[in-house]
Amino acid sequence: MAKITAHDLAKKQKEISVAEFFERNKHILGFGNQTRALVTSVKEAVDNSLDACEEVGILPDISVSIQNNEEDEECILIIEDNGPGIVKEQIKHIFGRLLYGSRFHAIRQSRGQQGIGISAVVLYGQLTTGKHALVTSKISEEMPAVILEIAINTKRNRAETVSSTTTHWDKTSGTRFEIPLKADYVRGKRFIYDYLKNTSIVNPHAQITFNESDGKTHVFERTSEVVPKESTEIKPHPYGIELGTLIKMGSASTSRKLSSFLKTDFTSMGNRTIKLVLEKSELKDDLIPKKMKRKDFLSLHKAFKKVKIMSPPTDCLSPIGETLIRRSLKHETQEISPEFIITSSRPATAYSGNPFQVEVGLVYGGNLPKDSQVKIMRFANRVPLLYQQGGCAITRAISSIDWRHYGLDQKAGKGIPTGPGIIMVHVASTQIPFTSESKEAIADIDEIENEIKLALRSCARNVQRHIRKKVRRKKTKDKFVLITKILPEISKKSSKMIGKPQPMLDGVITKIMDVIWIEDLIEYETVKGRPVQTTLNNPDPTNNKGGVITKSLIRIANYKEKPQKFSLIALIPEDAVVGEVNPTPVKMTDHYLKWDLEAIPPAQKKDVIFELAGLQKNDFDVNDLYVQDINPAYIIGAEKWEGE
Amino acid sequence: MAKITAHDLAKKQKEISVAEFFERNKHILGFGNQTRALVTSVKEAVDNSLDACEEVGILPDISVSIQNNEEDEECILIIEDNGPGIVKEQIKHIFGRLLYGSRFHAIRQSRGQQGIGISAVVLYGQLTTGKHALVTSKISEEMPAVILEIAINTKRNRAETVSSTTTHWDKTSGTRFEIPLKADYVRGKRFIYDYLKNTSIVNPHAQITFNESDGKTHVFERTSEVVPKESTEIKPHPYGIELGTLIKMGSASTSRKLSSFLKTDFTSMGNRTIKLVLEKSELKDDLIPKKMKRKDFLSLHKAFKKVKIMSPPTDCLSPIGETLIRRSLKHETQEISPEFIITSSRPATAYSGNPFQVEVGLVYGGNLPKDSQVKIMRFANRVPLLYQQGGCAITRAISSIDWRHYGLDQKAGKGIPTGPGIIMVHVASTQIPFTSESKEAIADIDEIENEIKLALRSCARNVQRHIRKKVRRKKTKDKFVLITKILPEISKKSSKMIGKPQPMLDGVITKIMDVIWIEDLIEYETVKGRPVQTTLNNPDPTNNKGGVITKSLIRIANYKEKPQKFSLIALIPEDAVVGEVNPTPVKMTDHYLKWDLEAIPPAQKKDVIFELAGLQKNDFDVNDLYVQDINPAYIIGAEKWEGE
Repeated sequence: MAKITAHDLAKKQKEISVAEFFERNKHILGFGNQTRALVTSVKEAVDNSLDACEEVGILPDISVSIQNNEEDEECILIIEDNGPGIVKEQIKHIFGRLLYGSRFHAIRQSRGQQGIGISAVVLYGQLTTGKHALVTSKISEEMPAVILEIAINTKRNRAETVSSTTTHWDKTSGTRFEIPLKADYVRGKRFIYDYLKNTSIVNPHAQITFNESDGKTHVFERTSEVVPKESTEIKPHPYGIELGTLIKMGSASTSRKLSSFLKTDFTSMGNRTIKLVLEKSELKDDLIPKKMKRKDFLSLHKAFKKVKIMSPPTDCLSPIGETLIRRSLKHETQEISPEFIITSSRPATAYSGNPFQVEVGLVYGGNLPKDSQVKIMRFANRVPLLYQQGGCAITRAISSIDWRHYGLDQKAGKGIPTGPGIIMVHVASTQIPFTSESKEAIADIDEIENEIKLALRSCARNVQRHIRKKVRRKKTKDKFVLITKILPEISKKSSKMIGKPQPMLDGVITKIMDVIWIEDLIEYETVKGRPVQTTLNNPDPTNNKGGVITKSLIRIANYKEKPQKFSLIALIPEDAVVGEVNPTPVKMTDHYLKWDLEAIPPAQKKDVIFELAGLQKNDFDVNDLYVQDINPAYIIGAEKWEGE
Repeated sequence: MAKITAHDLAKKQKEISVAEFFERNKHILGFGNQTRALVTSVKEAVDNSLDACEEVGILPDISVSIQNNEEDEECILIIEDNGPGIVKEQIKHIFGRLLYGSRFHAIRQSRGQQGIGISAVVLYGQLTTGKHALVTSKISEEMPAVILEIAINTKRNRAETVSSTTTHWDKTSGTRFEIPLKADYVRGKRFIYDYLKNTSIVNPHAQITFNESDGKTHVFERTSEVVPKESTEIKPHPYGIELGTLIKMGSASTSRKLSSFLKTDFTSMGNRTIKLVLEKSELKDDLIPKKMKRKDFLSLHKAFKKVKIMSPPTDCLSPIGETLIRRSLKHETQEISPEFIITSSRPATAYSGNPFQVEVGLVYGGNLPKDSQVKIMRFANRVPLLYQQGGCAITRAISSIDWRHYGLDQKAGKGIPTGPGIIMVHVASTQIPFTSESKEAIADIDEIENEIKLALRSCARNVQRHIRKKVRRKKTKDKFVLITKILPEISKKSSKMIGKPQPMLDGVITKIMDVIWIEDLIEYETVKGRPVQTTLNNPDPTNNKGGVITKSLIRIANYKEKPQKFSLIALIPEDAVVGEVNPTPVKMTDHYLKWDLEAIPPAQKKDVIFELAGLQKNDFDVNDLYVQDINPAYIIGAEKWEGE
């Protein structure tokens, strides 16, 4: 053969359009097969609707409808919302162009981050059916809705408006997205149901309706009337910035002084921190950022790491919250009647300057299968992750923990444990590092994996404590029952035999028991018309629909020989508001109530009660009790207080 | 707060450059941490060098050098090859622009497919150090080398040439790529060593030198002098084409007739097939493709599926070959002295019209750890996959097989098995469906997963057969040893006692044994100056360096009462060339030799010998023998012939 040269090779070099690239690599976007393609399409559209509603403070009302045409293996997917709508000029770009969007450049938690998702759906629909997407949008009550038919020119990655018209739409505002696509509806619908159900669990403020192709309708009801607090957009944090990005930012800055550049373009940079950074960098404040050289930026970059800079603010995040996680898991496992549900959440932290936060929940026991691997529920920024479990940091973190200490079975202390459990993990971040554009798995970023591990371990320790407490209480209870049953019998018989009256046994029982026994009972009272705060951080004082009062009764019985005086602490869940408390606590914080109890005489009982509002029934079903200023070995039913 | 409207949201909508996108999502490209970033950079550069050399038929000579600057956590990475070089005008595009390349639009097996890899390295280097890449290229002996300094304008995704000069370079042609980047050299070097070693294993025609930062040098020697046959570029296959692509192709076609469009733009479309497709589609041949409507294309698309169309040609693939896989595994496991190595390869097939082929190897026993999970070695298009094992179709296929039948331990018959084994899988395809741009894991495409499973099962069955044969042979051998040892003793003593001469025992032994015993012995003879073909499909007649002759001796002993006459079949490995054979076989194919043996009288032996060239020592170390026209239950050392 003739010798091939560099010139021959050069002729083949070509630009690749991003639309062509993803058309070829559609599996990277989550369109690898016809089941997955359908689920991904629903997911991208619903994520967009939720993001849009939250951005403008609307309680989302979303409907997902699918019309299946089995003969052609084609579906028509329609997603409709009551969001703000999209201005006409933007529609074609948003739906018809990959890498176009509003959330890429903003540092705050949102579902969409990439500007790829929804246009990828249009691309897939067009690729597989040769048909176009239909977008209806209404942006205000006074205006008619517009309907655009959108195609993508893949060679140029640009949208083409095939047709445009207006219509009357009986809605204040909203968006309707209709796309024909090749899909396996029969296999896919189960996944869509699961996806919508799980979405509803972590987005209780959304009402989601699923209209199946055969006319069946599922409604996932709204269970909270409060739109989650919109996460705030922040500036980049100095710790995570790459040198190249710093140079780019400096070169683009209009600041006339280095200090004002630092103040304007970064988060967590107060005057004191800026002064320290300038000192460490040995740079003068009158340097004009735009004119700085690479070596100046390098000094600045190194100085960042030498100074203790406050963590980024966390209001850019919108975690689910432990109460909601408990409630979701309880809801999810109703028929399983699990032995216990334990949650744990970590404080917000950052990887490469991106704030993130981990929350986990663990369900154990009940009718859960004992011989299968535990079920893993993964969420990222309130979106359920359905695929690629094996390649996800969440799975890796779970697999790296030796669960054999915590009552689960595991081969060699590694891998997904076996046993009656469900492990739920939610990662919230301004930028979830997904392994690919399909956003199905979290990449193995050390900081994130570690936080997940810490949260899981804390959960697992609570499981252990829970089991230990249960075993101890059971043992003492057995003893107690034995004594209170047998002793009176003996005393009765002996008294009869010797013809004397029965003696008081309380003292004797007390002496044998030699413990302080703490029990709690929780009841729920439904209240009408009384202002009760709904879930989530943001109380809504206008909500006057009534709710549930959680009443907690704690009974302390002194079965020791001497009077006992100590402090009792009861934890309260983050979303609850404390109502009536008796006796009056000496301390009351956001997280706990503390009582200095008066001395309880031997064989006497003392009741402590408190009421909680802002929770739903069963949100709070067991007290977490602690004691102080007493030997914790005397106590059954509470632990030693290590807090504060 | 003031009500936010669609107009407010519209203001935030922006185009995202693909370079900005990947700068932000660098973990998707394999730059998630500083260890991985270094390994990915080496991988992208070496892959490019190998592809370029193979494209022009040069035996690759590649050096990888790293200079570590620990203080700044910076490395300078230099990769140099003896490939064809790159013409000056193309250098900046290839290295400074994402989504630009020659291999994206070509349907044939190559390492690079995306036009992202090497420019991503430049992007990462620039992002983390603020410095530029340096590319030296020489395209012919007569011309000086050019040196370009390349930067990427991320907002525009365009390259900028920072400086340009020429130099003398003492090489016929080649490319040298130098990039400063933030990297964890200390942790990374072990992975680079592994990556280069594994690359060398599946690319024995490449000479690879690794210069560590401290001056240490590792050379991975070339073990084959033949460049793998360049894979041929093919047209798309009708089975895999999406309707949207078909419409796009038709609309862009200059053919004046439908039949010529089908013939020109597709593979596997002969006249007879085209006629059938036209019939089934009910379209007229005089339709001009460019003017066809969506419904015409739909009919055509449906017709494709109704007609049996020949599989795509497989010369677009370049598999490794079983001999080479065996050799690599043998090499890799030298110190382990495994019990056996078994390989299996599947015929080429296709997913969505993309041809692909699976080859697997299995190592068992020896000093391999018994209590750990088996080691998995994954390769795609001759490139080792190091990361994301958990998210790879190869791992899923392995985990889905119940290995307990095959001597490995496995919890509930699922997951990665435990035991003394190594499983190697190579997938070769015109388009490997990687889960992300970092090309570390294969997506779960059903067709690929199934082929891997089939190959693994066939391998596993061979393992089973191997074990069964071993057990049976051992049992019979024990019996044989017992008889041939004890019987003569008895006979000797009895003869002595009764004063008669010792009788001939062969007949008796034969009667007791009642089997035909087949044994084989393999020897290697090193030959100098004799033309011996090297590995891989492409024999190189100019290679006159000598080599190894593999001599196989098969001894058949008839321990049955009657003369035995049957056919013997010996498999020969694909890359071997048969030399002397005695007796003359009745049949000789690419895959086996067959002899019709003359009747062997009772207690007699018969030898069969054959020589193989084209293999290295130990490539062939045990015969795979089969028999025909005899009850296979009589035979120890061969199986029933089911072939052909």
